[in-house]
Amino acid sequence: MLLEKTMNYEFADRMAGMTGSVIREMLKSASKPGVISFAGGLPASELFDTEGLRMASAQALENPEIALQYGVTEGVMALREQLALMMWARGALVQAEQLIVTTGALQAISLLGDAILNPGDTVVLERPTFPAATDMARLRQANIRTVGMDKDGLNLDELEAILRRERVKFIYVVPNFGNPSGAMLSLERRLRLLEMAIKYRILILEDDPYGELYFESPPPPSLLALSGQVPGARDYLISISSLSKIVSPGLRIGWMVAPAEILRQAVIIKQGQDAHSSTFAQIVALNYLKSDRLRYRLPTWRRAYKARCETMVEAIKMHLPSQLEFDTPAGGMFLWARWRDGRDSTALLQRALEHDVVFVPGAPFMGGQPDRATLRLSFSSSEPGRILRGIQRLARARMP
Amino acid sequence: MLLEKTMNYEFADRMAGMTGSVIREMLKSASKPGVISFAGGLPASELFDTEGLRMASAQALENPEIALQYGVTEGVMALREQLALMMWARGALVQAEQLIVTTGALQAISLLGDAILNPGDTVVLERPTFPAATDMARLRQANIRTVGMDKDGLNLDELEAILRRERVKFIYVVPNFGNPSGAMLSLERRLRLLEMAIKYRILILEDDPYGELYFESPPPPSLLALSGQVPGARDYLISISSLSKIVSPGLRIGWMVAPAEILRQAVIIKQGQDAHSSTFAQIVALNYLKSDRLRYRLPTWRRAYKARCETMVEAIKMHLPSQLEFDTPAGGMFLWARWRDGRDSTALLQRALEHDVVFVPGAPFMGGQPDRATLRLSFSSSEPGRILRGIQRLARARMP
Repeated sequence: MLLEKTMNYEFADRMAGMTGSVIREMLKSASKPGVISFAGGLPASELFDTEGLRMASAQALENPEIALQYGVTEGVMALREQLALMMWARGALVQAEQLIVTTGALQAISLLGDAILNPGDTVVLERPTFPAATDMARLRQANIRTVGMDKDGLNLDELEAILRRERVKFIYVVPNFGNPSGAMLSLERRLRLLEMAIKYRILILEDDPYGELYFESPPPPSLLALSGQVPGARDYLISISSLSKIVSPGLRIGWMVAPAEILRQAVIIKQGQDAHSSTFAQIVALNYLKSDRLRYRLPTWRRAYKARCETMVEAIKMHLPSQLEFDTPAGGMFLWARWRDGRDSTALLQRALEHDVVFVPGAPFMGGQPDRATLRLSFSSSEPGRILRGIQRLARARMP
Repeated sequence: MLLEKTMNYEFADRMAGMTGSVIREMLKSASKPGVISFAGGLPASELFDTEGLRMASAQALENPEIALQYGVTEGVMALREQLALMMWARGALVQAEQLIVTTGALQAISLLGDAILNPGDTVVLERPTFPAATDMARLRQANIRTVGMDKDGLNLDELEAILRRERVKFIYVVPNFGNPSGAMLSLERRLRLLEMAIKYRILILEDDPYGELYFESPPPPSLLALSGQVPGARDYLISISSLSKIVSPGLRIGWMVAPAEILRQAVIIKQGQDAHSSTFAQIVALNYLKSDRLRYRLPTWRRAYKARCETMVEAIKMHLPSQLEFDTPAGGMFLWARWRDGRDSTALLQRALEHDVVFVPGAPFMGGQPDRATLRLSFSSSEPGRILRGIQRLARARMP
């Protein structure tokens, strides 16, 4: 065994208490063959439009002086134009100059953290929320307040109580089928949230990677789209999205729509983080979007996830009928659930692993106030037959 | 004209004085047709091994469930193994687990800044240095000390005087054909620098993107390779490199070799910055490196840059014989020069633009102590005939 010498390096204060992503570590162990994974948040690999991306990348290499070369930090202009058109199709009036390309939507969260947050500033997160948002705030030594959710999304009365009490720099919200909640913010609450942004002069960071993945009907318009109806709201709105869940996460192509002043600061940070996102990946994404194949691929994603979600819901009703409570999501990739008897999901995970099934305990999604009976079940990356077997295994793992 | 409303957003204190990369802004205006650019630091597009990368990307898409999917933050293990082999070939014993893949070497600099620097900490940079290193330190509100260079690289007596006087967190050094200096740190100084790292317990960040681009004989072994001869030095050494200058900058594939504890902290930061570098780009790089085509491509890069550098040196001797002083570089992409009469390069740039030739004034490379008579001339991205014409134009622009 290699004995590792301890050097007592002097790390920055911001690293204190940063432990890395529990989920990402778990992804590593869950790749054991035979394990059925409801952990991770992987899109279904078999649904990638590989043929379309093959053509898009062959085409990209027809202009190696662009695709293989350095580019500008803001992103390839032709791609920004395509993404602006996509936002337009989603109901939001966006010019190419009003968005920048980021290395996954995650980078946009990080850029905003660096541009906005001083140590001691306060941010508001949903409860439960995307753990990377919590880590972003922690790394900038910000104070975190969390606001509860129901199936219509964020509890705005609870939010307003916080905003009345203290100065908040921004609130991070995933209005459509959030990770992990699966919840969808109602139209009424969206409009009220925009009005609160103006009233309390608080920035809203809208993260919308899942909005296209609805099962029946599209979700209400995004906060960005609705900001046209609430004069002044757009000044307080940063809206990010990504191709990760509808084209490929491996490309790492996200984008960020923000007021010009905020975009300028984000670009300065990004210059120092990675100079620009992979030009090659950007041109591949550009060619793919221009091919218009995504329009015909989206229904495939939606149908598959709908079937997988239904299978999971039915399997739970059959095998864990009285044990698990949850709201059935109307889109996205996740089912957020809770053991009715308050059973500790983290403790259960060890037994689940012995039964070759994994999920993510809810605690990492809860910021400072974990409800240890919660868990996240991802239905996106397993076919229905496996989902059924996985829930059966989970039911067996729960038995005394 | 659109009147932009001013919102008085409250940005983080770290943004004060951050203005973005002057060079990157300049790249945008230099793309006007007909302009001969000695600005930028672009590799020669026509030398990209497009055919090799075409095969590598077609091959990548044979396994879409890997190339298009999420990956681990540390990078694709098979690529880390290839990069470790490459480091081995360069004389440094590196295991795959001792390096992580970064989104360009630039990201490694940023990760280290976040992991190590508190506001008020002191870092040492070369004078002149890569402006991104200066920005990295400024953004973390660190104090910057600079140390002068000659053609054998960093002045170590000047460095030691600083280390005796104050606690320094780390020193950033580009030992081979640095940007912008073009200088090469001598073997003797490399060994002494490693000994100073141990004596003063100071981290060294070695950045080596240009080492393979030598014109005649290879540079001395890297600090990483030499650390094997200086017991204990490796504990203080972080060594980064990149495929940007020898394969393609558009892939954004860099890597970072560091002690395990530092690598762990860097991974935590990277999880929040971009989750991982583009899997697609990583697999393309992996396939390309495995094809072994790089071995046959490197001499092409070296020969071309050698010819371009020689042309530039000859053209200067012919057209600006007594006006410009410089050391002829032995590799890399840059010639660092100074007007003997102390002429201000920034002021000259405007006239140069009128003559359709651009370069980068030296001031942004000098940290807080600009010598305004300096300038950086990049010879990498223009063919010899254009270099000759560009220097002629520069000579005309200088005329009264």
